[in-house]
Amino acid sequence: MSDHPFSTASSVQALKWSDRGLDVLDQRALPGEVLYQTFDTAAGVAEAISSMRVRGAPAIGIAAAYGVVLGAKHGFARGPAVWKQAIEDDIRRLAESRPTAVNLFWALARMREAISRTEGDPVPQLLAVARKIHEDDFAANLAMGELGANLLAGAQGVLTHCNTGALATGGYGTALGVIRSAWRRGGMERVYATETRPWSQGARLTVWELNQDKIPATLLADSAAAWLMKSGAVQWAVVGADRIAANGDVANKIGTYSLAVLAKHHGVKLMVVAPTSTVDWATASGADIVVEERDQRELLHPCFLEAGSVVGAWNPVFDVTPAALVDAIVTEAGVVLNPSAEAMASLR
Amino acid sequence: MSDHPFSTASSVQALKWSDRGLDVLDQRALPGEVLYQTFDTAAGVAEAISSMRVRGAPAIGIAAAYGVVLGAKHGFARGPAVWKQAIEDDIRRLAESRPTAVNLFWALARMREAISRTEGDPVPQLLAVARKIHEDDFAANLAMGELGANLLAGAQGVLTHCNTGALATGGYGTALGVIRSAWRRGGMERVYATETRPWSQGARLTVWELNQDKIPATLLADSAAAWLMKSGAVQWAVVGADRIAANGDVANKIGTYSLAVLAKHHGVKLMVVAPTSTVDWATASGADIVVEERDQRELLHPCFLEAGSVVGAWNPVFDVTPAALVDAIVTEAGVVLNPSAEAMASLR
Repeated sequence: MSDHPFSTASSVQALKWSDRGLDVLDQRALPGEVLYQTFDTAAGVAEAISSMRVRGAPAIGIAAAYGVVLGAKHGFARGPAVWKQAIEDDIRRLAESRPTAVNLFWALARMREAISRTEGDPVPQLLAVARKIHEDDFAANLAMGELGANLLAGAQGVLTHCNTGALATGGYGTALGVIRSAWRRGGMERVYATETRPWSQGARLTVWELNQDKIPATLLADSAAAWLMKSGAVQWAVVGADRIAANGDVANKIGTYSLAVLAKHHGVKLMVVAPTSTVDWATASGADIVVEERDQRELLHPCFLEAGSVVGAWNPVFDVTPAALVDAIVTEAGVVLNPSAEAMASLR
Repeated sequence: MSDHPFSTASSVQALKWSDRGLDVLDQRALPGEVLYQTFDTAAGVAEAISSMRVRGAPAIGIAAAYGVVLGAKHGFARGPAVWKQAIEDDIRRLAESRPTAVNLFWALARMREAISRTEGDPVPQLLAVARKIHEDDFAANLAMGELGANLLAGAQGVLTHCNTGALATGGYGTALGVIRSAWRRGGMERVYATETRPWSQGARLTVWELNQDKIPATLLADSAAAWLMKSGAVQWAVVGADRIAANGDVANKIGTYSLAVLAKHHGVKLMVVAPTSTVDWATASGADIVVEERDQRELLHPCFLEAGSVVGAWNPVFDVTPAALVDAIVTEAGVVLNPSAEAMASLR
């Protein structure tokens, strides 16, 4: 948002709303190029999501909410009497832009509920709801930042994985928000960021974002994390979550489980940072989570290899870390230490 | 060698000798392009090594030996009386091509010793020594292959790291040689190869080499190895070594230590395969091994990042795995189970 209400925001903003529409920072072009594109239709925002110009579950939900505002604006201009029917097409298109994103469905449900209450020109009313979704996400990030930074007190080096920062959220970050808060308090000296193959979100996005905010960051190969922990340079690993089971098992970007095992071996503590909306109470444990696999060509093609009868690739999108390897789950509603089904119940 | 004496060789040969000179497979172009270049001078071979067209300690030593033959050929043609002085320049140039490669110095010392015994046309005599170095390396690989395959009996899936195959050696491989032998015996179903960032030797070289030899191979991101182990798909991890201390601690490509910790956690066994020349009896333990760091630009530049006061990269070339995490060290002279200073003494 160009008029972001929070002075604590990152200097990096994935999404900016203006009278022209939604400005989206093209994350596919980062860090080579900082390119904002303006989308002024719901279909355009849906395309920005499906093409991965915007990524990160919270950021996707926020973008979709603004997309609904744009749909209502065009629909209402065409016919004030029928726009509530027309907007359903826009919502469907936005819902289909990334089929597995929980935040996306949650944001669209909230916008649909607001639509049902709307009378007259819907734009100011729906824009207020979209802004609220955006600001609530930011406020939740800030609350998690404070809670997580309390735990990080005394840590000089912190390791993180993937990108969970301003780029992935409403402008602050989940795991990277905790790191941001700890840095602002002083004491923390350096963030160590894994490359996060095969999409390299750590190298392309996290290190770039930290550089923009002048937070000292060191990039390393994923496979060097164990050797880094052995050196004593990091006291905590701080990561986000795609889904948290009711017993505290955590599904997150592939490589998180590896860091969890390595952290336990080296006495490095592991913090998972995610809003309560990430906790799936219907999933009893990580054993019930099916891990999606992406196209093996993502690994093979950069090396000019084709999948065939002899050669292939295994490309799981995320992995599941058992609660026993997690020291703390930080949400906006509170911290769960040594998570278990019993301890997690405090969040319900 | 075009006339390779061993029918068991890989279909991939990094080095082939002919009357024209030394044909070197340009490993920088793999797997996009299979490009052999012929070098007919010692300086040319030195350049092929320093530019990393040929890599892998054993392959470098063999290439240098053939380089000495080429130097002697040109020197003897220019002046049969003075070639033994002229060849010293060639040997010096070859020795400087990769300053830390132990096998390189060992091969050059062996060639220099042969030169001192040479009378008349040196080419046939020195070529015989170079061929012997090449064939001895192959024979040692084959011996390790047999010993290692005995240990792998019953393993359906094997994980490997970096490239330790025909490309890195005289035509068979150390760790990948063990995997090759196990595959030929039957029973082993699939090799899992890590990408091996930041140079991607696993993705670029190992998977390509296994594909050439029709050995089923699956590529995975380095950070996915833990999740693979958790799945039960691999029973052994098999890796090479750059240097082995007298107590069995192993310095090898960055990421090996990570795999060792993860293997121990998952009950996956770890095998290190290297010729006895890799054991450095003067190094008491891994604590005495200084880990070289490469230029941080190797990690930053692909992401258009520049090292500065805020952002940097940590790029260790190798790491050190304590002997306690190693189940077996396989050399051509025998196997050391549960390595320790006492157990290693059986190799002396």
